Amino acid sequence: MGSHFSYTCQARCCVTKARAGVFHTPHGVVETPRFMPVGTLANVKTVTPAQLRGTGAQMVLANTYHLHLQPGEDLVAEAGGLHRFMGWDGPMLTDSGGFQVFSLSEMRQISDEGVTFRSPRDGKIIQITPERSIQIQNALGADVIMAFDECPPHPATWDEVKRATDRTMRWLERCFVAHTRTDQALFPIVQGGVYPDLRQEAAEAIAQYEAFGYAIGGVSVGEPPELIEKIVQVTAPLLPEDKPRYLMGVGTHKEMVRAIAAGVDLFDCVIPTRLARHGAALVQGDRWNLKNNRFRRDFTPLDDTCPCYTCQNFTRAYISHLLHAREILAFTLISIHNITELVRFTQRIREAILGDRFAVEFAEWLGHG
Amino acid sequence: MGSHFSYTCQARCCVTKARAGVFHTPHGVVETPRFMPVGTLANVKTVTPAQLRGTGAQMVLANTYHLHLQPGEDLVAEAGGLHRFMGWDGPMLTDSGGFQVFSLSEMRQISDEGVTFRSPRDGKIIQITPERSIQIQNALGADVIMAFDECPPHPATWDEVKRATDRTMRWLERCFVAHTRTDQALFPIVQGGVYPDLRQEAAEAIAQYEAFGYAIGGVSVGEPPELIEKIVQVTAPLLPEDKPRYLMGVGTHKEMVRAIAAGVDLFDCVIPTRLARHGAALVQGDRWNLKNNRFRRDFTPLDDTCPCYTCQNFTRAYISHLLHAREILAFTLISIHNITELVRFTQRIREAILGDRFAVEFAEWLGHG
Ligand SMILES: [Zn+2]
Ligand SMILES: [Zn+2]
Repeated sequence: MGSHFSYTCQARCCVTKARAGVFHTPHGVVETPRFMPVGTLANVKTVTPAQLRGTGAQMVLANTYHLHLQPGEDLVAEAGGLHRFMGWDGPMLTDSGGFQVFSLSEMRQISDEGVTFRSPRDGKIIQITPERSIQIQNALGADVIMAFDECPPHPATWDEVKRATDRTMRWLERCFVAHTRTDQALFPIVQGGVYPDLRQEAAEAIAQYEAFGYAIGGVSVGEPPELIEKIVQVTAPLLPEDKPRYLMGVGTHKEMVRAIAAGVDLFDCVIPTRLARHGAALVQGDRWNLKNNRFRRDFTPLDDTCPCYTCQNFTRAYISHLLHAREILAFTLISIHNITELVRFTQRIREAILGDRFAVEFAEWLGHG
Repeated sequence: MGSHFSYTCQARCCVTKARAGVFHTPHGVVETPRFMPVGTLANVKTVTPAQLRGTGAQMVLANTYHLHLQPGEDLVAEAGGLHRFMGWDGPMLTDSGGFQVFSLSEMRQISDEGVTFRSPRDGKIIQITPERSIQIQNALGADVIMAFDECPPHPATWDEVKRATDRTMRWLERCFVAHTRTDQALFPIVQGGVYPDLRQEAAEAIAQYEAFGYAIGGVSVGEPPELIEKIVQVTAPLLPEDKPRYLMGVGTHKEMVRAIAAGVDLFDCVIPTRLARHGAALVQGDRWNLKNNRFRRDFTPLDDTCPCYTCQNFTRAYISHLLHAREILAFTLISIHNITELVRFTQRIREAILGDRFAVEFAEWLGHG
């Protein structure tokens, strides 16, 4: 492994474990903490890469499971890799497919070898092993790729989670062996469900691997928010200090600010685009249903402090009109705003950390206020 | 009326009746000949105003009938007019609603007073008279507004068309009386169906009105292309030389090039965005279904001579993938290309006219080749 990746910590909060840093990748830097939008099928739904750039997003996700099913990693590789295929030249990350196999596919069989399931697209039987997941991700070519993990649902017993966590550790070894590209960073994932002892065991085990970053997985799978917070507080500090920490699938304001206070740097969530397709905008931490009658004649921007394209050019009344008229452009405009809002929220936190004002400025969010 | 509008002819083809010119409006110039995209409900479907600007579009249409039904012209006026409401600060045009009332609404009753129909949205009985159409268009605030006309379907007998054409003329007088804003130009419309004598009569009658531009309506309502071409050839030269001429609802390459040869300057059509929603791209005059298997591994742009955002950043394979994956972004990318293609086609014609190469360069299109 060469010098394609590095993480520099720029500042630490003197009250919490929050830190601000820069993660260098072959396709540019990610200033942390930072929210990352999700482009499941090699596009962030209804948003072009140019519009995405305008939101302040730096690293973008894509999903290995979905891209393996269509259009297939061979086609993406033939296109020159995911960056060229989807026209995003900034940092990218692919998940391992583990979470999707466990949450979306039916008739799955799990063994130490891997997971076998029936494709929801054409009914074909597909096997994904740790080796296969890494091969697919090597073919896709994102900057950061994720270890293939077993992600048990919530609730699950201690024994069930223990078995899954142990298997995830055995799979991690095979992932590192299978991984061939030095221009991609493989991040191990901590599992362990809601059990602090299992989380601790897993965190210590993966910290043994020399990686460019580490992730916390298996949260936001149905647990109550307090439990998510607790698990993150236990787990994050056990991951290596000198590498970025990524909390998978989390992206509400409150969850992010509290995870950042525990030392997390990166987040992803489908929420900004999913909410947009339901006509909901994230405005200063709240969710507004823009189809609501109170917006029909509201000629102010979604958020007058927001620098996004949508807020600079359109009113709540206009977006409400588009939604009532079933015009797809509404989804684009709301998605642009929602992504901007989450990225900007993490940017504001970052600036507060850099100025050592985080604990004070975000006291209310942190529950210290 | 003041100096808000003017038309300057810059060059005339020495073989055909084609001309290149500039039409000045309160929101900027329209260089003619030029294709105008349609933004029915105050948005060009799936395309933002910034993306639209990038296509080279100068004047954009909106539909009075649709906007009257939702969100209503009062709301648009309260928003500061159509330009501000939809975030398009370039020239705009609204149709009169006549065509839509006749083609889309059910249970309509036509009298000299106007047209009464049942709203497809809520079943309410709505009456649109010439005065009402102009009031609505005055409230919407587009630069160019259209006279309210009776648009008979095809086929219709000479007597039927004669009655509709006469009524359209009586309505025109009322439109001019009702029109109150000097910052909007009211264009009369020639009707007359497929009957040259009625077209001639109507053209001569509307030419009596001192207007800033004139339109040819009632074509592309089901007639064969040869008939459209013939009608345009008869009608266009009868309209005042010193004003722009607008052929309503026409927008295929062949129809436009031939109408331009007859002296037409402006065109509109929903085809670029409608085709996009069916996965079809306009490439060098052809229509390609991008879901077709032959595009799945085609890593070239839609059109490598095209400067549009889509062609500069994405491949046929990528757009094909988005379509197969039912990703809405496909519609945006194809719409951007399709609009660019039609605008660019009329721009190329314009440049040929300016260089007096039109008849030679477009000989094949004109059928002289
Ligand atoms: Zn915004
Ligand atoms: Zn193009």
